[in-house]
Amino acid sequence: MQGKFITIEGIEGVGKSTNIAFIQSWLESKGIECILTREPGGTELGEQLRNLLLHGGDVSDKAELLMMFASRAQHLQEKILPALDQGIWVLCDRFTDSTYAYQGGGRQLNLSWISQLEQLVHGEKQPDLTLLLDAPVEVGRARASARSSADRIEAEDLAFFNRVRNMFLERADQFDRYEIIDATQKLSAVKMNIEMTLNTLLTRVKN
Amino acid sequence: MQGKFITIEGIEGVGKSTNIAFIQSWLESKGIECILTREPGGTELGEQLRNLLLHGGDVSDKAELLMMFASRAQHLQEKILPALDQGIWVLCDRFTDSTYAYQGGGRQLNLSWISQLEQLVHGEKQPDLTLLLDAPVEVGRARASARSSADRIEAEDLAFFNRVRNMFLERADQFDRYEIIDATQKLSAVKMNIEMTLNTLLTRVKN
Repeated sequence: MQGKFITIEGIEGVGKSTNIAFIQSWLESKGIECILTREPGGTELGEQLRNLLLHGGDVSDKAELLMMFASRAQHLQEKILPALDQGIWVLCDRFTDSTYAYQGGGRQLNLSWISQLEQLVHGEKQPDLTLLLDAPVEVGRARASARSSADRIEAEDLAFFNRVRNMFLERADQFDRYEIIDATQKLSAVKMNIEMTLNTLLTRVKN
Repeated sequence: MQGKFITIEGIEGVGKSTNIAFIQSWLESKGIECILTREPGGTELGEQLRNLLLHGGDVSDKAELLMMFASRAQHLQEKILPALDQGIWVLCDRFTDSTYAYQGGGRQLNLSWISQLEQLVHGEKQPDLTLLLDAPVEVGRARASARSSADRIEAEDLAFFNRVRNMFLERADQFDRYEIIDATQKLSAVKMNIEMTLNTLLTRVKN
């Protein structure tokens, strides 16, 4: 049986890392083999592209969009699809929804370009579950900036991140695979919400 | 007045570098300001992508295609279009025709993908003149291998390069902007052919 493909989305500072670690150990406690990976990145080439994207010099909006999908094409072929084919679950920190949110919402690139590239790179292959950790931009930014200095994309302004958040919410409304988790709750409540969602997915898989 | 955009195409070992240097000095002797650039590359980001493409580890075919166009998007925005807008001519060692030839012909990727990416990255903007230096693959390879060790793409087999050459010839047949130069001739004859072509372009520009 194919592994399940779970993606975690959201703006900076909503607690993605903490909750991804929780999801991984929860799955393992249920005896499910899973790998943890991220975008942009996840492969040797992808991590080099990530470095150029986040810490490099001048990158035009179109070059950024194409590099995101180049990293993704490599990631799918080299890591994600082979794992799923072996029945291993894949937990991915950001995926194509982030491209819609950041390059489409944030940078306001043509959404039909993103959709064309999505078709080219992963056709009908979509995540089985997308967890959107959602919080107002001010809340996320305060947490993120307390943690580390901003990379090239994190350095954008509030209006940018509001467009990013709104695009995530729009897409969550559009696709059944999305589950919105209110990230302003206490961590214990966030984890309980995630656990319920995972239990539902697991029950679906078993039946 | 806009500068003219000249691209030089062909398989390895057909004498691109020598003839590009000749074109540049010929144009300068006519008082035409021009810049010399190359693909993949031409910008800081582009040269870093070139390095990953030609000397990096595993790169899937789709990632390669997307990285070529990422480099091109940056190149157009940062260097080519601003130069042309200032009336400076641009002489470019390889451009989108090479993507059709290598990724489309050589790697046999879907040509409609390439055409979609071409539209996304440079819409109706096409070179004013494309010089195709043409020679049988055996001739080019013998010259290229005498010169340096092969990069990731040059390491492909004879059948690959025959498909590349054929795709160049097909496209030359299809587009008026192409001029085929027989690169098996003596260098002096090649230069004379190029000079005639440039003179024709210059006459067209002046009238």
